[in-house]
Amino acid sequence: MVTVDSKLSIFALGGINEIGKNMYVIETEDDLVIIDCGAKFPDETLLGIDLIIQDISYLQENKNKIRAMIVTHGHEDHIGGIPYFLKQLNVPIYATNLTLGLIEIKLKEHGLLRNTKLVMINSDTEIDLGTIQTTFFKTSHSIPDCLGIAFHTDQGTIVHTGDFKFDWTPVGDKSQDIHKMAEIGQKGVLLLLSESTNAERPGSTPSEQVVGDHIEEAFRNATRKVFISTFASNVHRVQQVVNAAIKTNRKIVLLGRSMVNVVAVAIERDYLDVPEGLIIEPSEINRMKPENVAILCTGSQGEPMAALSRLASSSFRSAEVLPDDTVIFAASPIPGNEKSVSRIIDNLFQLGAKVIYGSGTVTGMHVSGHACQEELKLMLTLMKPKYFIPIHGEYRMLVHHRILAESVGVKKENIFVINNGDVVDIENSVATHTRIIDSGNVFVDGFGIGDVGNIILRDRKVLSADGMLVIVTTISKSQGKIISGPDSISRGFIYGPDAEALMNEVNESVRSTINSSSNMYRNQRVMKQDIKKTLEKFLYSRTKRKPMILPIIIDI
Amino acid sequence: MVTVDSKLSIFALGGINEIGKNMYVIETEDDLVIIDCGAKFPDETLLGIDLIIQDISYLQENKNKIRAMIVTHGHEDHIGGIPYFLKQLNVPIYATNLTLGLIEIKLKEHGLLRNTKLVMINSDTEIDLGTIQTTFFKTSHSIPDCLGIAFHTDQGTIVHTGDFKFDWTPVGDKSQDIHKMAEIGQKGVLLLLSESTNAERPGSTPSEQVVGDHIEEAFRNATRKVFISTFASNVHRVQQVVNAAIKTNRKIVLLGRSMVNVVAVAIERDYLDVPEGLIIEPSEINRMKPENVAILCTGSQGEPMAALSRLASSSFRSAEVLPDDTVIFAASPIPGNEKSVSRIIDNLFQLGAKVIYGSGTVTGMHVSGHACQEELKLMLTLMKPKYFIPIHGEYRMLVHHRILAESVGVKKENIFVINNGDVVDIENSVATHTRIIDSGNVFVDGFGIGDVGNIILRDRKVLSADGMLVIVTTISKSQGKIISGPDSISRGFIYGPDAEALMNEVNESVRSTINSSSNMYRNQRVMKQDIKKTLEKFLYSRTKRKPMILPIIIDI
Repeated sequence: MVTVDSKLSIFALGGINEIGKNMYVIETEDDLVIIDCGAKFPDETLLGIDLIIQDISYLQENKNKIRAMIVTHGHEDHIGGIPYFLKQLNVPIYATNLTLGLIEIKLKEHGLLRNTKLVMINSDTEIDLGTIQTTFFKTSHSIPDCLGIAFHTDQGTIVHTGDFKFDWTPVGDKSQDIHKMAEIGQKGVLLLLSESTNAERPGSTPSEQVVGDHIEEAFRNATRKVFISTFASNVHRVQQVVNAAIKTNRKIVLLGRSMVNVVAVAIERDYLDVPEGLIIEPSEINRMKPENVAILCTGSQGEPMAALSRLASSSFRSAEVLPDDTVIFAASPIPGNEKSVSRIIDNLFQLGAKVIYGSGTVTGMHVSGHACQEELKLMLTLMKPKYFIPIHGEYRMLVHHRILAESVGVKKENIFVINNGDVVDIENSVATHTRIIDSGNVFVDGFGIGDVGNIILRDRKVLSADGMLVIVTTISKSQGKIISGPDSISRGFIYGPDAEALMNEVNESVRSTINSSSNMYRNQRVMKQDIKKTLEKFLYSRTKRKPMILPIIIDI
Repeated sequence: MVTVDSKLSIFALGGINEIGKNMYVIETEDDLVIIDCGAKFPDETLLGIDLIIQDISYLQENKNKIRAMIVTHGHEDHIGGIPYFLKQLNVPIYATNLTLGLIEIKLKEHGLLRNTKLVMINSDTEIDLGTIQTTFFKTSHSIPDCLGIAFHTDQGTIVHTGDFKFDWTPVGDKSQDIHKMAEIGQKGVLLLLSESTNAERPGSTPSEQVVGDHIEEAFRNATRKVFISTFASNVHRVQQVVNAAIKTNRKIVLLGRSMVNVVAVAIERDYLDVPEGLIIEPSEINRMKPENVAILCTGSQGEPMAALSRLASSSFRSAEVLPDDTVIFAASPIPGNEKSVSRIIDNLFQLGAKVIYGSGTVTGMHVSGHACQEELKLMLTLMKPKYFIPIHGEYRMLVHHRILAESVGVKKENIFVINNGDVVDIENSVATHTRIIDSGNVFVDGFGIGDVGNIILRDRKVLSADGMLVIVTTISKSQGKIISGPDSISRGFIYGPDAEALMNEVNESVRSTINSSSNMYRNQRVMKQDIKKTLEKFLYSRTKRKPMILPIIIDI
């Protein structure tokens, strides 16, 4: 039984001071519930890293208390870490129909589907997770079937918004349930965790519907084939592409693995209404009139292996961008992707295509899935929480969200702008932040989870900048002299006619370092240090480069 | 003497289908003139490359014809390649006072100042370059003292705009000379080369003056220190910072090497009006009241080694960002820099600063230096050229500029959307494009110019992704067996407790490959191939990584 004094703790293992890798935890003395398990994509400084996930050592230490992982929606930053998590901890996963469908694709790829307990919920579900009673409310976002969560505990109600916007004219009939939100707020919310992605942006995010009008207009104006690229998971936008295709008498071809996968799941689970025969195979394009074809593809962010990038470099045999075809970017470039997107646009122009590109506010081909300032204030006003933690966002976004919360009446001292790992404890309905638990970035590289650390990344950085030089020398202990080498092998350092001469000098330098070394027969380590130091200086003075130098000495 | 039939050729060695590395050439039978010599910064795929410059082999082959290099203005993409050029070819350089000052800084750094002929010109100068008579006209841009060029040849007049915008209310009294442009156009222009940077943008670029008002307002509102970051070369903006500092009773501290250098040159050459005593040393900050200090610094693009980045990470001893200080980004992030800029903004928020950041159209703290569509049409209308070549821009920008030219009456067939290396020949005042000359990217890495090619970059890419593995084995020829090794050394591949076990397996695999090899005493190359193939497969199956594998076999 729960005592009224039982303590409650809230913390994040990812998603605060960053975009991506979301994971939040609510913990009582007996029970622990995880919200979301996202991945994050590495920036260009994390050489060779595939993915970043959470450090879940705290959860492993407390695994017996874990009752559930609840997933708010099916975006990568909320589900991408699940396969890696499940390889370390097996917990039941609660999510809505579409979200489960997307999770299942991942689990299949990792061979994890059979041993995972997946529980389908909807916004009416009530779950009893030990001391934590859980209810849900619908939210609008750039993927269907999103949930906000209300945890009813003996300390009070904790609300987690998930990602959301308010869309008063949504595509499809499933939108945010503002009445339920109002009711939860009216009954009293102790703590609100609300997303901050667009907290820097004034005003409100436009309805997804405005994109549909622009797509239809572009389809009408197109005299030949239309290529349109967007996020596969934006099922509402895909529906609008389907609608525009029907109205303008075009068949649809799907290109890109995730587009094919997600559309299949969305149709199968009834989130997408596609008439029989509308979708045709790429091989059928050539027997169609160009004005009767629309190609819906991945790659709106310039990803080099995605469909649009391959179309731009003409590497698809079945689908070719030809002069006067229309190509639509139905998604604004995410910060950091502008350059790769521009490269593709240039290639498409070279192919003679008409390209509709640029910010969604200009083209009308994209709206955000996240609440802007006025909507964030609406959520804060609906929930009127005593305490507030801004989540999902980089630091400046969290600060802006704090200011918004203050502006609608949340007390400054009741707002916690925290970090991943910072614990907010609630006792007697009073929240304090005094503790920190382990959290951090874990790098996924190939099969390895977490074995790529600073040393490996530092080495990769050195290797990437100036390459490397291996010098092998064989020394005979008995004869006390060099019997083979020094031989130098370089990669990524220098090349061509000048290289050989320089390598001869390198070998000569190493030979004299070894011969003049009083440690020749004693201390390999010191000798290697001498070689390294001498060569570093020599090579920098000659080339202004700093390759990684690896002296190898073999004693026989 | 020049015959009326003499041929004229125009081409680019850089600056077309790219932003950066500008270089254009006008050539008659006897004479050759070079316009600009810019550098370009490498993107993240060009590992370890410092700078990209032009392939100038065509100029080397025709060096006896070169009469001059004319530099339109002092930005990096127009002067950054000069030191590297001069190491290959010595030509006289013609430029305005400020541009020469900025070039001289570079030549000093490279020890080239003494042997270079620098000729100071202004917009009234007329130069006789053999068969090419050259006059100039003033343009407005984000750096003072910019020139457009008119080449008067027996084929007709060729106009090169340089970079420009039209600023009707410029800062300082030196602005574009529209009357001279009109006069050149009225006399007849055979061919116009005009810049295309903002050809995608409708409307007109606002005047630099609007930035001044916003800077002054921010300075007035700031209760403590102000940090303001912009491009050092934007002398007009620096002047407006100076003006705001005077009006709000603040002294100015300069931080960042290029800010200190450029401001010194600009003051010395009378482009910047700074009262005696206004600029103080960083060491004096601490004896000033915070509300009497403004720190003008480099790093508005998030460059990791620049002043602002170091301020954000608190690594300056003399100048510290403290709570309630104001930090102003007086420059929009250039595409590709958004992420590093955001990182710095977050750090500044963490320090408690008030940060003014984001697009210049929102903050008012930045305007472009380039002409938008209406201004480009004005230039085309003023010059009313028979032929037109859009320059300075990526492909989509050139296409937009072509459309603008058509809209104001240039015939479609008279517009050449060309590539670097494409030659436009003019004979009997008729232009054709039939020839291509050598052009391309030359990479600067350390002291090496051009020796970094595809092989080195490919190796660096492999090394950066998964590191490397060296396996050394010594074989005795006489005994027919392994006498030392195999020993494995890896860098950037794997590390930690699992690594040792894996390396033992690697060594075992190599041992058995060598022992089972029938080629043991014959063909080292084949043996190495066998080792490599076996290990690649083994390591990928175990780690899903593909390090560079370097088998080394020593025969004794």
